[in-house]
Amino acid sequence: MFVLGIDPGLSRCGYGCLGGDAASPMVVGAGVLTTPAADPLPSRLAVLAEDLRGLLAEFRPDAVAVERVFFQTNAHTAMSVGQASGLALAAAARAGCEVAQYTPNEVKLAVAGYGAATKDQVQRMVQRMLGLAQAPHPPDVADALALALCHLAVAPRLARIAAAEGGR
Amino acid sequence: MFVLGIDPGLSRCGYGCLGGDAASPMVVGAGVLTTPAADPLPSRLAVLAEDLRGLLAEFRPDAVAVERVFFQTNAHTAMSVGQASGLALAAAARAGCEVAQYTPNEVKLAVAGYGAATKDQVQRMVQRMLGLAQAPHPPDVADALALALCHLAVAPRLARIAAAEGGR
Repeated sequence: MFVLGIDPGLSRCGYGCLGGDAASPMVVGAGVLTTPAADPLPSRLAVLAEDLRGLLAEFRPDAVAVERVFFQTNAHTAMSVGQASGLALAAAARAGCEVAQYTPNEVKLAVAGYGAATKDQVQRMVQRMLGLAQAPHPPDVADALALALCHLAVAPRLARIAAAEGGR
Repeated sequence: MFVLGIDPGLSRCGYGCLGGDAASPMVVGAGVLTTPAADPLPSRLAVLAEDLRGLLAEFRPDAVAVERVFFQTNAHTAMSVGQASGLALAAAARAGCEVAQYTPNEVKLAVAGYGAATKDQVQRMVQRMLGLAQAPHPPDVADALALALCHLAVAPRLARIAAAEGGR
């Protein structure tokens, strides 16, 4: 199963694609999509949408895991993050992928074992779980890989629960 | 000049396309895009994105005016409105349109003459300015038409200011 994790953002949108399963995940590709801060918002969103479509065409993931966005203290940033998440969710659904959203706490719980892990701890856990020589950098990449790891861990459990409920 | 006004929303996204100019605007088309509330969010966003692309292909507007979204008291609604606005802005920029965002206050000021106008007053002013037999309904349609009227009124002023500054 290929899972593409997306940490939505307008200035920096992290992505990380994993293959394999929760026991032996493999990095297929990872990086950051950026848009020029000097460009008008609509152009930046159009570029991001195009780049997201490009990622989906390149990796052809079975599932896409997008960070669930909440309102933050910085209302301006939160709105652009919300707009970026809308593009990611729409592009993933349009590409026919299974789409899941996870809160930052759910991701930290799945990857670091507890929901209050720091960014640094998440980076190191992602590095260890994926057997990487270095911690993924910038943190947006680590967050995207952590989202994909979270989905690899959670999806089989959810499938088992659904199967058990269906068999009642 | 064709101007497409978009009042972004996931359950109801109002749109209104005007031709002509501020002195004699004409309605080219108006309505509401809806997505099924029971469907998963990613699917709804994908459907909305597709419908927005369809509108842009149908009306081929020169400019698109999108309501500038702010955080509201209902955080859940505000996020889906933000996601919908992201799709509208990206689709408009990708279609090569001039894209403008106006706050609700700017629109009310342009259409009703003051920024604290009620929804009802906006509906009646839009009806009068466009010579419609009835007030546009639902309010999402009136808001979208008001956005297009606002752009028709404001765009020539901005162009004159830009020309004057360029000629200095």
